[in-house]
Amino acid sequence: TIYTVTPTYTRLVQKAELTRLSQTLLHVPSLHWVVVEDSPVKTSLVSELLKRSGLRYTHLCTQTPKDFKLQEGDPNWLKPRGVEQRNLALQWLRENRGPSDEGVVYFADDDNTYSLRLFEEMRFTKRVSVWPVGLVGGVRFERPLVERGQVTGFYTAWKPNRPFPMDMAGFAVSLPLLLANPAARFHLSAQRGNLESSLLQALVSIEELEPRASNCTKVLVWHTRTEKPKMKQEDALLLKGLGSDPSVEV
Amino acid sequence: TIYTVTPTYTRLVQKAELTRLSQTLLHVPSLHWVVVEDSPVKTSLVSELLKRSGLRYTHLCTQTPKDFKLQEGDPNWLKPRGVEQRNLALQWLRENRGPSDEGVVYFADDDNTYSLRLFEEMRFTKRVSVWPVGLVGGVRFERPLVERGQVTGFYTAWKPNRPFPMDMAGFAVSLPLLLANPAARFHLSAQRGNLESSLLQALVSIEELEPRASNCTKVLVWHTRTEKPKMKQEDALLLKGLGSDPSVEV
Ligand SMILES: O=c1ccn([C@@H]2O[C@H](COP(=O)(O)OP(=O)(O)O)[C@@H](O)[C@H]2O)c(=O)[nH]1
Ligand SMILES: O=c1ccn([C@@H]2O[C@H](COP(=O)(O)OP(=O)(O)O)[C@@H](O)[C@H]2O)c(=O)[nH]1
Ligand SMILES: [Mn+2]
Ligand SMILES: [Mn+2]
Repeated sequence: TIYTVTPTYTRLVQKAELTRLSQTLLHVPSLHWVVVEDSPVKTSLVSELLKRSGLRYTHLCTQTPKDFKLQEGDPNWLKPRGVEQRNLALQWLRENRGPSDEGVVYFADDDNTYSLRLFEEMRFTKRVSVWPVGLVGGVRFERPLVERGQVTGFYTAWKPNRPFPMDMAGFAVSLPLLLANPAARFHLSAQRGNLESSLLQALVSIEELEPRASNCTKVLVWHTRTEKPKMKQEDALLLKGLGSDPSVEV
Repeated sequence: TIYTVTPTYTRLVQKAELTRLSQTLLHVPSLHWVVVEDSPVKTSLVSELLKRSGLRYTHLCTQTPKDFKLQEGDPNWLKPRGVEQRNLALQWLRENRGPSDEGVVYFADDDNTYSLRLFEEMRFTKRVSVWPVGLVGGVRFERPLVERGQVTGFYTAWKPNRPFPMDMAGFAVSLPLLLANPAARFHLSAQRGNLESSLLQALVSIEELEPRASNCTKVLVWHTRTEKPKMKQEDALLLKGLGSDPSVEV
């Protein structure tokens, strides 16, 4: 089973993002979607979408502590995003899966783009498998460098001295490894860029990483980001009490 | 058959966009994807992607005339986008399909988000079927207004006086109607916002529009747009001759 962990939060494009991601995942055999809302309650938008998705899923929620939550107007990179949501998914796995369960855990943000081949690459992961990520870190792609089948370093331009200079989309972890290391988790307090490392340092060394995607030469996942839609006319109409019908879900 | 016409052009996110759109379309029965590149030649990126997609498709190309092509730095709305590409698809349909062929034609940009239900709503279109579009025109959604099963007007805030104030994603046209009106096409010279109208005025009147999606009360398609990825580090590396390996396709 591929446990695909997706943190998500309420915003105008949320339903669109989850809709297209669910369509991708629906092509993947033996997948279990763990969707964790950054919210104090499970919203009906996400609940209904999951119910209709045709996917096997678990729906959780936990709100990011206020001090760590991005505020309107903050640049995106100011605070880590989706941290406690991913940790709640880890907790759920530890409470609901045991030594006899096989599987791999992948952290799939709601806005990235995933090829179907990616999921086949990660399916057989002993400890931690890795591959390139497109359109991230200010370069066309970041990737692990591989020599004779072993990861020896990383191609990355941004903060190359990070312990594991990889994006969240660039690795998957075996479920047994996570269960065997019950303290491994993401650290809210990790320095900018070190969130991935805060989990991985508790699980593997660089030499143990398992390169996938033809020795990390193929881009099978893209760190796409969706524009925030402009609501100029809507805001103007709202001021006049003429906003669009709020009973229509978007 | 649903002929889904997608204009597309070379840019960093192109492969990501076409990848996730192809995954959506792969769920839709009896679909034929007409992909038209804005390029003087068919690129290998798009050719290979189509070959591997598992979809029934036709691959065409035509370059937007230079005077009408957006230049680096132009705001997006300055010029119409994808016009001659969609017209080439119409020409292909007229040359390769005949009076005995049933079908419906939908213009699906490569960056929007489509629910699967949308395709079932359009499948049986007599002339032109219509529905709401989310996240467009500066409002949460635009939509046709329906009274007793008939379209009587439109909810839209931007240029409400357009003949058909609808986005490209908000309608589908029956193939026989297109074949019966061989001069109907998109006009490169249409005023901003009137591109859709330039086709539709040659095909139907507002009273003839067929409302779908529960009398145009459900949003089943979203006008999402993908951020242009920042390539700050890549540009700096390129100046030093150290850009990322160009043989890796992104
Ligand atoms: O306040 C927030 C912001 C983001 N996210 C989720 O965390 C993940 C990463 O966020 P985002 O894509 O905005 O960050 P990026 O890595 O693109 O900068 C996504 O799945 C978001 O839905 C969240 O749960 N709460
Ligand atoms: O120079 C261009 C710009 C855009 N497009 C295509 O035309 C459609 C509409 O463009 P875009 O999504 O950029 O416009 P929007 O409606 O979002 O402003 C998309 O399928 C693009 O891939 C194109 O073929 N050539
Ligand atoms: Mn993201
Ligand atoms: Mn678009």
